Amino acid sequence: MLKQRGSKAEIETGSDFSPKFDGDGLIPAITQHAKTGEILMFAFMNAQSLAKTLNTGTATYWSRSRGKLWVKGETSGETLKVIEVKTDCDQDVILIRVEPQGRGAACHTGKRSCFYRSVEMTDGETSLKDTGGEPLFDPRKVY
Amino acid sequence: MLKQRGSKAEIETGSDFSPKFDGDGLIPAITQHAKTGEILMFAFMNAQSLAKTLNTGTATYWSRSRGKLWVKGETSGETLKVIEVKTDCDQDVILIRVEPQGRGAACHTGKRSCFYRSVEMTDGETSLKDTGGEPLFDPRKVY
Repeated sequence: MLKQRGSKAEIETGSDFSPKFDGDGLIPAITQHAKTGEILMFAFMNAQSLAKTLNTGTATYWSRSRGKLWVKGETSGETLKVIEVKTDCDQDVILIRVEPQGRGAACHTGKRSCFYRSVEMTDGETSLKDTGGEPLFDPRKVY
Repeated sequence: MLKQRGSKAEIETGSDFSPKFDGDGLIPAITQHAKTGEILMFAFMNAQSLAKTLNTGTATYWSRSRGKLWVKGETSGETLKVIEVKTDCDQDVILIRVEPQGRGAACHTGKRSCFYRSVEMTDGETSLKDTGGEPLFDPRKVY
């Protein structure tokens, strides 16, 4: 299903999908809400999870901590329906645009997005401010 | 400027910014247009480039290919003004929301975004379709 990588020009301007996996066989995958544009999460895919994502239309990653294929939402019900799959100029990153299912909480904390905190700078000191709204489920009751 | 990492709960719910760099001292950084929500590019930061991004308000990455600090747009003029810096639940990814300067072409190909192609599936075969519009500059005249 995936093509061999050609020259730089072919990779950047061609129509062959030839994603570049790193030394561990992984490629970074950004997940974005297809309607709101909000970044929901970031994870890695291997060739198998990328093929499964494309074939099933449900976002599937590779869990580095558990060392196994990870159908997002398998346990929580918070699956992600794939609307569009994109790649970048050198085809070493995947961007999937999705419609969240279930309660619409992509993060294991119950938040809509994993990116629920902003970095603030005051007098050269950093701190985090929660800008992500209330959790949509109680993780203690789901996992 | 960056804090020591605490417990899982402190990392996920606390206000200390304690980003996790990988074995090479790098953290993935997603760059998003602050107004349109479009994903513009993906690159890595080290502690120095993250600090510089926060202190100068101009997106600065670590170039793995050149092995040096990379002020995005230094050569092309396509710098990225930082509006907001976010991190994810386990603080191992950075999301920066930016206002592109110059001609508004974040990609070295002259395109607005590096993610200018969508993956299409036809009879189990993948191909890429350019959905990114015309380049905003001619890379041969800029680099």
